[in-house]
Amino acid sequence: MVTAYVTAPSEFASELAEALVDERLAACVNHFECRSTYRWDGEVVHDDEVVLLIKTTADRYGAVESRVETIHPHEVPCIERFDARDAFAPFADWVEDSVE
Amino acid sequence: MVTAYVTAPSEFASELAEALVDERLAACVNHFECRSTYRWDGEVVHDDEVVLLIKTTADRYGAVESRVETIHPHEVPCIERFDARDAFAPFADWVEDSVE
Amino acid sequence: MVTAYVTAPSEFASELAEALVDERLAACVNHFECRSTYRWDGEVVHDDEVVLLIKTTADRYGAVESRVETIHPHEVPCIERFDARDAFAPFADWVEDSVE
Repeated sequence: MVTAYVTAPSEFASELAEALVDERLAACVNHFECRSTYRWDGEVVHDDEVVLLIKTTADRYGAVESRVETIHPHEVPCIERFDARDAFAPFADWVEDSVE
Repeated sequence: MVTAYVTAPSEFASELAEALVDERLAACVNHFECRSTYRWDGEVVHDDEVVLLIKTTADRYGAVESRVETIHPHEVPCIERFDARDAFAPFADWVEDSVE
Repeated sequence: MVTAYVTAPSEFASELAEALVDERLAACVNHFECRSTYRWDGEVVHDDEVVLLIKTTADRYGAVESRVETIHPHEVPCIERFDARDAFAPFADWVEDSVE
């Protein structure tokens, strides 16, 4: 089982999560409000964003990354892949069955 | 060091966290409010939940999974295992000492 | 790409995030309010904290850990390392370029 970690503007998060689940690229998405700190034009700034943890399969991770890149409003979105070392078997099966 | 990633209904999160720490299956639990998007009866739905990050050891991960499965209100809860590549040694020692 | 997972008191989180980005030890930091459950003086307690996910490189992870240890108010802070299995190339390049 694989999790895609993506940051996005708050107003875009639900739209992204819905598209990925609706298109069966993800079984489910957990999204969290967060505060991000980074350097912008030489200044250290804080921004309110949302982190989305997108639950998918190894086979479909590439398609998730491409889809996020296509519809994300940022030119260089944060998209990272984290692999679970193990998962509760019935849940892993549900993810497998939910993704095409 | 190992983290169990579990989603749960908001009203159940503290009870689950307390049980795991009280029974020394976990050293500590960080829980976060989140919004989950998934397909239910053919519809894409949103739900408020909590994600729990349960800090334990490789030896006790199986016991954590079984305990969560037993007391969780969902039939197929999300339970995933993520292994830290490294951890601050004194903290890792504290986790080791806190878990039985 | 590497993520340092650190818990901290709410009032300290922004200061820590700013220091790490300002000193170019991290490209960005996503911080989340959370509730932590753990044993303290034999009692199971709950506490409001912040989790910081610090985006850095494998080369600079050691320096991030040392810096957090130095300025963190806790004697034994939670500092864990999670490695991404993969990352969107332009984002990974941005992190590489942002960290010294």
